[in-house]
Amino acid sequence: MSLDQALAYAKTNHARFLNELIQLVSIPSISTNAEKKAAMLQAADFIARQLQQLGFQNVRAFPTALHPIVYGERMDAGPDAQTILVYGHYDVQPTDPEDLWVSDPFSPEIRGDYLYGRGSSDMKGQVIASIKAIESVLSQGSLPVNIKFLVEGEEEIGSPNLSSFLIEHASMLKCDVALNPDSGMISPNAPTIVYALRGLAYFEIRVFGPDHDLHSGVFGGVIHNPAQALCEIIARMHDSQNRVTLPGFYDHVLDLSSEERAQLARLHMDDQYYLDQTGSPTVWGEEGFTSTERIGARPTLEVHGLYSGFTGQGSKTVIPAWAMAKISTRLVPNQDPEDVRNGMVAFMQQHAPKSIRWEVIPMQGGFASISDIKLPATVALAKALESVWGIAPVYKREGGSVPVVADMQKYLGIDSVITGFGLPDDNIHSPNERLHLPNWERGIQALIHFLFNLA
Amino acid sequence: MSLDQALAYAKTNHARFLNELIQLVSIPSISTNAEKKAAMLQAADFIARQLQQLGFQNVRAFPTALHPIVYGERMDAGPDAQTILVYGHYDVQPTDPEDLWVSDPFSPEIRGDYLYGRGSSDMKGQVIASIKAIESVLSQGSLPVNIKFLVEGEEEIGSPNLSSFLIEHASMLKCDVALNPDSGMISPNAPTIVYALRGLAYFEIRVFGPDHDLHSGVFGGVIHNPAQALCEIIARMHDSQNRVTLPGFYDHVLDLSSEERAQLARLHMDDQYYLDQTGSPTVWGEEGFTSTERIGARPTLEVHGLYSGFTGQGSKTVIPAWAMAKISTRLVPNQDPEDVRNGMVAFMQQHAPKSIRWEVIPMQGGFASISDIKLPATVALAKALESVWGIAPVYKREGGSVPVVADMQKYLGIDSVITGFGLPDDNIHSPNERLHLPNWERGIQALIHFLFNLA
Repeated sequence: MSLDQALAYAKTNHARFLNELIQLVSIPSISTNAEKKAAMLQAADFIARQLQQLGFQNVRAFPTALHPIVYGERMDAGPDAQTILVYGHYDVQPTDPEDLWVSDPFSPEIRGDYLYGRGSSDMKGQVIASIKAIESVLSQGSLPVNIKFLVEGEEEIGSPNLSSFLIEHASMLKCDVALNPDSGMISPNAPTIVYALRGLAYFEIRVFGPDHDLHSGVFGGVIHNPAQALCEIIARMHDSQNRVTLPGFYDHVLDLSSEERAQLARLHMDDQYYLDQTGSPTVWGEEGFTSTERIGARPTLEVHGLYSGFTGQGSKTVIPAWAMAKISTRLVPNQDPEDVRNGMVAFMQQHAPKSIRWEVIPMQGGFASISDIKLPATVALAKALESVWGIAPVYKREGGSVPVVADMQKYLGIDSVITGFGLPDDNIHSPNERLHLPNWERGIQALIHFLFNLA
Repeated sequence: MSLDQALAYAKTNHARFLNELIQLVSIPSISTNAEKKAAMLQAADFIARQLQQLGFQNVRAFPTALHPIVYGERMDAGPDAQTILVYGHYDVQPTDPEDLWVSDPFSPEIRGDYLYGRGSSDMKGQVIASIKAIESVLSQGSLPVNIKFLVEGEEEIGSPNLSSFLIEHASMLKCDVALNPDSGMISPNAPTIVYALRGLAYFEIRVFGPDHDLHSGVFGGVIHNPAQALCEIIARMHDSQNRVTLPGFYDHVLDLSSEERAQLARLHMDDQYYLDQTGSPTVWGEEGFTSTERIGARPTLEVHGLYSGFTGQGSKTVIPAWAMAKISTRLVPNQDPEDVRNGMVAFMQQHAPKSIRWEVIPMQGGFASISDIKLPATVALAKALESVWGIAPVYKREGGSVPVVADMQKYLGIDSVITGFGLPDDNIHSPNERLHLPNWERGIQALIHFLFNLA
């Protein structure tokens, strides 16, 4: 039976698959870093060559205003067969703080069951798993479905050029459903399908005081210190119930049904789970909701970075001229990132004191998304996951943001089936990112099942 | 008359004096920077050689746990003459942000009436002025008083090793009064005598949350973000009247008498003055006090630096593992820096939430000081300043901190006469520090008068 042979092929070729993944993880494709332009092109080229080697047609790296989008297709299942659009991204997060990495982020190293390196889990491992599942099926003949493959290079910076690409190339990208393996599993024994994702609105807030750094003895006490003022402003962004105070923030939030709350409660991600994952002293969050609800179904606001004045060793008695915070909100259906941007500006107009000047720089943004778990492709994936893990998958609302899912709904009219084989302790976006290799191998097997189930 | 000849000598030798100042400013003697050890020794050696060239005896650079203290004496006025201890420091502040300097901080450059370079005003210019005033008097014969000269290398980091030096060498340092030229003038036409200085208690506060940086999508909303928590804590350090909220902070503060308030009001440093000096949109501060009172006679709390998470270009969606603030309080008589440290810890115990861990690292500290303006040396200095500028000096409470003044009072039993020839827009502790050269020259003349007036 060709399914079994395809599964066997994947096992036989595991070492080569891993070696190709290591080659891809070695490329420092940090999309937010202007100096990594060459690495971005190199990673895009690597993906394009992978597709070409599998006989994909029309393989191209489409230039964008920033990083290219790689596309290719295999349409040989014919016009009556389903067409699946597989989505991925080849860019990765920055690597700071560098000194906390045990091995170099771009010199992938295997330690125990893990491959360590930036992007190993998010999501170069998932992209290679998808390609290798296709290769394994092709090794036994032809594909039962048509496949289009789209791999972008700007996911980690909010996919600024993807929506215009989807609009411009809508007919080329025409398909029945998308497979998006950029999510993860809630634990090694719980294959996971994500049916909702949070959106994002990201900002940089700058507060300006004096026109130059001042001596805090000579001027301390007569002007409003911008670092202090920024702290005072940020402190007002949550109320005593830990709710976000931006004007209108909750106006359009889709409430959780009692049925969905009951289902989310079955995920067994209790507070102890989050304490184990984070090492935080306690959990914290919006009153009236469980931790799982807060992450999946409630919008939040986070401070990602603070900078002001003297941060070196020792002491310096300066009143800094300015202070900066990087802040984002995670959004849920039906919040509009544009409304949230307006809310942030309104908040600053309302709360920033006259004693400082301020600036809100809007950065990336994207809508949340939610889909029906009874889609045929979702059912095919659920069956595939159960075949490999021996248990039915859990259905989860994801706290992260994949704006492309909402964009594909909006511009291509298609739903996405969202899964992935990363684990919660993979340290994605953090030092020592890693990929659990036995799980990655199971992921390739599951994707082979998925392709056969679609036939 | 030898006074006139000494004044003429200083004028004749101005170019050489300036050249020697430039040599000293060229030495990057940043005391807080562990890599500048060699420069610190070089600066100490430069001062020692200057004193030797003037015939000072027992010139030595006394080693300390960190940077040496330079000492020398000329006791030839005899046991019945007064002995003056001149205090200075050869260390300077760090130079960041480097990119805001027009010329290199340690390649002194003359532009217009100014010498630009780190330490030109604070206080290498003042140390050289003192040495050159002594040289000018000596050029006409002998000194009318005995002079002891003490120049330390740790003033900018809170003089951690000076008090033990004063205790250990109290008999060597025995004198009648100290001259401390580490202050400045309120404007070019207002020679200034400082009769009170603020003290200091400096801290680094660290807030810890998760044990590693987290993805804000995966975990945003279930743990307390340390950057947010730090902002919330700092926001509570001032109340709605802009008073500092550390427990017990105002308990021992010496109140201003109505007489002193009236005198401070005559300084003509109104709010517009502070707006002009700082470029801030408005003034700000503790309610119930004028700006001059806030700086000179009221304790304050300033944030010098903030750091957390991702501060680079672009965006990164991380929940940082920790956040840091550098904070100091400026103290007035009769606050004890140790009490303030205890107050900061008590504040954190009271206000830091259970959802984070925290640490308070005490750094430099020192007492405030206040002295009688009718001291003979103060009267001699006032007369000297009036001779050069043609107007009587103003008497001011200074917002900055010179812990050595309190220490000399405590350990040597002597008062300090505090003055200086720096101007408010010299950018001390900031980029483009500079020294107004015509004023510096007047300062040398005034110090020559002062020495003659002590006879």
